[in-house]
Amino acid sequence: MKDFAGTPGTFLGLILRMTQFVFAVGSIVSMATTSSFFNVTAFSYLIASMGLLVIWSFVLALLDAYALMKKKVLHNLIMVSLFVVGDWVTAILSLAAASASAGVIVLYFNDLGQCHFGEECQKYQISIALGFLSWLSISISSLIMLWLLAAG
Amino acid sequence: MKDFAGTPGTFLGLILRMTQFVFAVGSIVSMATTSSFFNVTAFSYLIASMGLLVIWSFVLALLDAYALMKKKVLHNLIMVSLFVVGDWVTAILSLAAASASAGVIVLYFNDLGQCHFGEECQKYQISIALGFLSWLSISISSLIMLWLLAAG
Repeated sequence: MKDFAGTPGTFLGLILRMTQFVFAVGSIVSMATTSSFFNVTAFSYLIASMGLLVIWSFVLALLDAYALMKKKVLHNLIMVSLFVVGDWVTAILSLAAASASAGVIVLYFNDLGQCHFGEECQKYQISIALGFLSWLSISISSLIMLWLLAAG
Repeated sequence: MKDFAGTPGTFLGLILRMTQFVFAVGSIVSMATTSSFFNVTAFSYLIASMGLLVIWSFVLALLDAYALMKKKVLHNLIMVSLFVVGDWVTAILSLAAASASAGVIVLYFNDLGQCHFGEECQKYQISIALGFLSWLSISISSLIMLWLLAAG
């Protein structure tokens, strides 16, 4: 398989995984420290999908770091196929969760005129923004993985 | 470029474009016939993104039909790159719009216990379901296009 920046076991690949991890953890922390997120299904779904993203990106970051240290090549068909499926599932789930939460928060702020959760509204917004950033980061990884698989 | 089912100018490609078109039109009709969709930003956004999808899939369906009739091959790098960008932008926008609307409708039905828009709530649900179906259809097209571009 071709080798280019961002593929598994490269430095850019590791950076992308760490970015996803950091943004997703930030999103969870910001959301979970509010006292009423569980009243809104979309917010709970955001935490769940960010949780999945944290686990996935942590495991792949470890794998990338291991491959970098031992100078191993991770480009075999089965592993890359597995990465593609995992990346796409988490990317789609995180975009859907961030969008659903954004839909709810826009409803509160824009359509209903105000957010009745008080100061927690800002935390919701930060959490959703971080959710979108982590989606952006995993979507780059997903595209690189699919490209690697297709280019063969 | 390689030639496989679903690429531009093939019969499956045309079917996929027509599916996207029909689902997106259905989603717009179901949403636009309610009297209060404009009160919710997410619902207006769903109409806008489905409108974009309708235009995009209609143009590409015409192009596919033309290529099929004239037996032309549409696989050159510039055109496929253009298709990839257009497909991905519309696919991401439609998933985000459908998810945002779904977040709002779940808030009304599940979290707040009822939907206060009366009988229109069912129309919202149908519109969102059709939005997800059209997203599913364009995401298949997007994957095929990206695969075609990457496989070269």
